[in-house]
Amino acid sequence: MEKAGVLYEGKAKKIFETSEPGYLWVEFKDDTTAFDGLKKELLDDKGALNNQISSIFLELLAANGIATHYERLLDDKNMLVKRLHIIPVEVIVRNIVAGSMSKRLGVPEGTRLKQPVIEYCLKSDELHDPMINLHHIYALELASEEEMKSIQEQTYLINDVLVPYLEGRGIALVDFKLEFGRHSQEGVILGDEITPDSCRFWDISSGEKMDKDRFRRDLGGVTEAYREILKRLKEGES
Amino acid sequence: MEKAGVLYEGKAKKIFETSEPGYLWVEFKDDTTAFDGLKKELLDDKGALNNQISSIFLELLAANGIATHYERLLDDKNMLVKRLHIIPVEVIVRNIVAGSMSKRLGVPEGTRLKQPVIEYCLKSDELHDPMINLHHIYALELASEEEMKSIQEQTYLINDVLVPYLEGRGIALVDFKLEFGRHSQEGVILGDEITPDSCRFWDISSGEKMDKDRFRRDLGGVTEAYREILKRLKEGES
Repeated sequence: MEKAGVLYEGKAKKIFETSEPGYLWVEFKDDTTAFDGLKKELLDDKGALNNQISSIFLELLAANGIATHYERLLDDKNMLVKRLHIIPVEVIVRNIVAGSMSKRLGVPEGTRLKQPVIEYCLKSDELHDPMINLHHIYALELASEEEMKSIQEQTYLINDVLVPYLEGRGIALVDFKLEFGRHSQEGVILGDEITPDSCRFWDISSGEKMDKDRFRRDLGGVTEAYREILKRLKEGES
Repeated sequence: MEKAGVLYEGKAKKIFETSEPGYLWVEFKDDTTAFDGLKKELLDDKGALNNQISSIFLELLAANGIATHYERLLDDKNMLVKRLHIIPVEVIVRNIVAGSMSKRLGVPEGTRLKQPVIEYCLKSDELHDPMINLHHIYALELASEEEMKSIQEQTYLINDVLVPYLEGRGIALVDFKLEFGRHSQEGVILGDEITPDSCRFWDISSGEKMDKDRFRRDLGGVTEAYREILKRLKEGES
């Protein structure tokens, strides 16, 4: 497997073409950003931790019959994934109210929702990822009704796999962000990452935050929290 | 019919109890506000114009089999309506992109949508009416799935009645806001008003704005535009 030219460089990942058609090389960077990149820091080992954490989650989903772009780990900071045409819609799942939902709707952080809430945002740094709904997605032709039906079904399934898996490891899955893309053969499947950058994880006994909110809110111990997540995922049920 | 105590005073309407149980007295005020009440002016005749415009639209919907809270006109500035328990969700229908949708999603004003877009906002001045979706509505128990299904059906019907009716009068229905409420016997029915305060109307030949955007954007001729809307509604097909 040879790494070729850079296809795209994002805030936390660098994507390369590869010698194998249909596959991309993902490098997880140590760069940590928040608030549309206004806050920025380099955190040693963060890239390697996220690469390994994401690989565990994506393998778990595959083992539960959910197709993802994940192919295999290349080394500590790099993974190989299938090339997708990413749908420019962020899918956010919320089990417990936190962050922007708490601020926007005036519901206290920590409120457990009666049922999971799915939110959609238009992927656009320039517009600050505005919230949209299915009507916008269809009217702007971002995805078809069939695609969004499949995305919603997969999203609920993913939540149903992740919540008990994490609970068994003493972690509450507060909310998380998914991205989906079109694969040439497999239809619409899960892309991107599942990491403490893209999820909110709270320790069930202490309520401690174990995710990027430690960075956003200057709580310190960011990589320590990410390391603890990886440790719990590797150790298995506690 | 006797007017009793004030039940509620909003930015553009004052609602009174009446001597008849189950009915409320709505007075349309001349107060005109925008940007959560930050911009405010008294416009002579605006209340009377909105009262008459809303009564024409609500009668038109009733004639097309869509139940509304409207009972009858009392005089120039006042109408009698059925008492509803208002659902705290604003329903916005968009046929052409304008206003907040244009700004939020970076789509030019005037873009005709492939299909109508329905948006939901939580009615809350304090939170500035944040956009929500059906998942939020169910999780926060603002309305049931059955109620929202009925609201969505009625909303499409209302749009299908209003668009051609207005087109026949040289007016494009760009977007509009509806509110629904629970009636003791009739289930969830349309409440509130349909006026140039709650709709965007553009003259089809000139593109001129004939609605509250004239006030919001300091274009002048606000009541003249409202008066022209009423005139065209009364004159019938042109």
